[in-house]
Amino acid sequence: MLQSKLFGKTNKKAPRDEKSVNAKLLARAGFVEKLMAGAYSYLPLGWKVLQKIENIVREEMNTIQGQEILMPALQPKKLWDETGRWESGKDVMFQFKGRGGADLGLGWTHEETLTDIIRNKVNSYQDLPLYIYQIQTKFRNEPRAKSGILRGREFSMKDLYSFHADEKDFLAYYEKVKGSYLKIFKKIGLDAIVIEASGGEFSKLYSHEFQVLTSAGEDTIIYCDCGKFGQNVEVAKLKAGEKCPICGKELKSGRSIEVGNIFTLGTKYSEIMKAYFADKDGKKKPIIMGCYGLGISRAMGAIVEVHNDKNGIIWPVSVAPYQIHLIEIRDEKSGIKKTAEKLYKSLQKEDIEVLYDDRDESPGIKFADADLIGIPLRIVVSERTIAKNSVELKKRDEERIELVKIDEIINKLKNNL
Amino acid sequence: MLQSKLFGKTNKKAPRDEKSVNAKLLARAGFVEKLMAGAYSYLPLGWKVLQKIENIVREEMNTIQGQEILMPALQPKKLWDETGRWESGKDVMFQFKGRGGADLGLGWTHEETLTDIIRNKVNSYQDLPLYIYQIQTKFRNEPRAKSGILRGREFSMKDLYSFHADEKDFLAYYEKVKGSYLKIFKKIGLDAIVIEASGGEFSKLYSHEFQVLTSAGEDTIIYCDCGKFGQNVEVAKLKAGEKCPICGKELKSGRSIEVGNIFTLGTKYSEIMKAYFADKDGKKKPIIMGCYGLGISRAMGAIVEVHNDKNGIIWPVSVAPYQIHLIEIRDEKSGIKKTAEKLYKSLQKEDIEVLYDDRDESPGIKFADADLIGIPLRIVVSERTIAKNSVELKKRDEERIELVKIDEIINKLKNNL
Repeated sequence: MLQSKLFGKTNKKAPRDEKSVNAKLLARAGFVEKLMAGAYSYLPLGWKVLQKIENIVREEMNTIQGQEILMPALQPKKLWDETGRWESGKDVMFQFKGRGGADLGLGWTHEETLTDIIRNKVNSYQDLPLYIYQIQTKFRNEPRAKSGILRGREFSMKDLYSFHADEKDFLAYYEKVKGSYLKIFKKIGLDAIVIEASGGEFSKLYSHEFQVLTSAGEDTIIYCDCGKFGQNVEVAKLKAGEKCPICGKELKSGRSIEVGNIFTLGTKYSEIMKAYFADKDGKKKPIIMGCYGLGISRAMGAIVEVHNDKNGIIWPVSVAPYQIHLIEIRDEKSGIKKTAEKLYKSLQKEDIEVLYDDRDESPGIKFADADLIGIPLRIVVSERTIAKNSVELKKRDEERIELVKIDEIINKLKNNL
Repeated sequence: MLQSKLFGKTNKKAPRDEKSVNAKLLARAGFVEKLMAGAYSYLPLGWKVLQKIENIVREEMNTIQGQEILMPALQPKKLWDETGRWESGKDVMFQFKGRGGADLGLGWTHEETLTDIIRNKVNSYQDLPLYIYQIQTKFRNEPRAKSGILRGREFSMKDLYSFHADEKDFLAYYEKVKGSYLKIFKKIGLDAIVIEASGGEFSKLYSHEFQVLTSAGEDTIIYCDCGKFGQNVEVAKLKAGEKCPICGKELKSGRSIEVGNIFTLGTKYSEIMKAYFADKDGKKKPIIMGCYGLGISRAMGAIVEVHNDKNGIIWPVSVAPYQIHLIEIRDEKSGIKKTAEKLYKSLQKEDIEVLYDDRDESPGIKFADADLIGIPLRIVVSERTIAKNSVELKKRDEERIELVKIDEIINKLKNNL
């Protein structure tokens, strides 16, 4: 992509009304634009990051046999009345009237919708287990939408639901999802801590949260560095400073971001909504369910909260909008443009994603923008480098600048990406 | 994909409340499930088709330099008051209150939102032209949501907006989009007729619709077989039976589906919303705009309306959920399963998308389901075919069955796909 054509200029200053690090940096770097509190547009750079996270999540869901579907956001009251959540969810659900006075709401979760489909489609134990997920836009009438894309009134979420004939099968899958989540968070550059959690709106049963430690989080967790003990402060019986019941080390506490959660639903929804199956003996039983959420846009916000410095964002390669930021330091005399353009085309030919700063701007502005945008590898072509048949290669998170021969750069990059 | 594990069983009967061909067939074949009038869930097969259409559209938009973004569905009244469309759009826009009594609505189009971003980001003629699109979920408080996925209260749409410094530049791009749309519709198996149209809600200026002739459509158009003349009956000055002003042939009329539309917006929105740029002489001018819609879910419905027979859907290869339907006619003695499984793995290795009917069902049920689901190529492995070291190959839209040697089938398929 030519930076001169890219939609979404950088800004020196963050919007005045933004308090969170993620919103400030993402707005300044041209990744997002705020429409109103809790609702953001994703500009080309931001949309690319969102898609990359989405695709990493999708790949992992498919690996654990998830089947992708897409359910509507628009929901009829009737369905939510079955579980009583039209009333109990009034505070979080946008509710309104459609044509002819029909009561409608916007989905903030999809147990009712999917259980409704399941009760129509599942008859026998032979139809189970099923693992169904979607990556979809959710809505919440959020009271505190002040944390940028960490807490939206409209946000992108992956929600997986599993349906089982017996508890053993459910528990094995629950553990599988736990492992899958840890893989996802590692891939996208988040050190997630698995902790025991209260069920919140969902359930008081067995449930876990995936927490990322950062000062921007809204949660507090008690955890141990051994990685084997963690609890949400809401349900914790131990305090920071006390000993870890697993390894004996001193427990710590921290304000943290919940990036994912997994819940045992048991037969709560299947009993209320009559989602039964016939077992091997023909006996009718309620389906055992689990649900597993992962905030796509929230994960993007968490990555920015964790990976930044005073100059801007530092994207992990896996989710960076581009892998390479190619910068020409223009000087009409020396053929720099020609060399940069040739390199740009070679990189594209190798399927390396490259943002090429072809703008007529000063080196100072170009370097500052590159640091702000945060693409992991920077290549500079200047008069000085060309004199040595070379380019400068620098990692966003390192100070060291390396001079690499032009005809060696592609192989060098392939080893770095 | 193993059909025994696929979520979304077929049904012999269509839901009683569905009148349209697309809804009946898609529901029976397990592609969609109705939540309420105008709101459908896309089950795994349906979601795959939707994604394929989406990706074909995305590729073409990128070819004409479109930059993809994602804007929120949730919209503040304030912004829509600038153009007066909060009031004038009351009939189609879902409007409701959020926390603290804020007036909110759901976007059914995004001129206001994007023009708001543009006026913050564009300063000079050097920032233009810009071509910005999204593939996003739209909402309409629809009075007649009776046509399955052709007319949803919630639906997937690609909306592209272009921004120009002068009219010549705009018109050249407008023609480019027209060509791009025709390419897209051809690729997804729709014969679209370009017609002159009234601007409807948008504009009375120069605009075109892309119409697909079928009895399920809600529009009537006057057109000529020469492909060079067409008008929406709402604006047509000629009638069916009169002579085509281009070629002299007799004009026809037909009830038709609008699958896309392109509009001249001129400076309507940029003047009202103060989206100006400075031209070469530093003079402030309003930005010239165009908008270009293409209904993703509606296109899927139109494909089903056009490509079906009495037994079910007939997907064009480009948008089929799978390319091959592999069917084993089971017989424990003859090693059919082993041959079918081996072929299934070989096809997957070749990146050919295959749905493998490994179910313990009768040949009759398997063939009926295959016809209903409508995957373009069917391969049958049975005792009879194995005796000849062969499989049966049949196109969904042909009666002819061909016997192909097992070790030749992969190459044969590669030539057919």
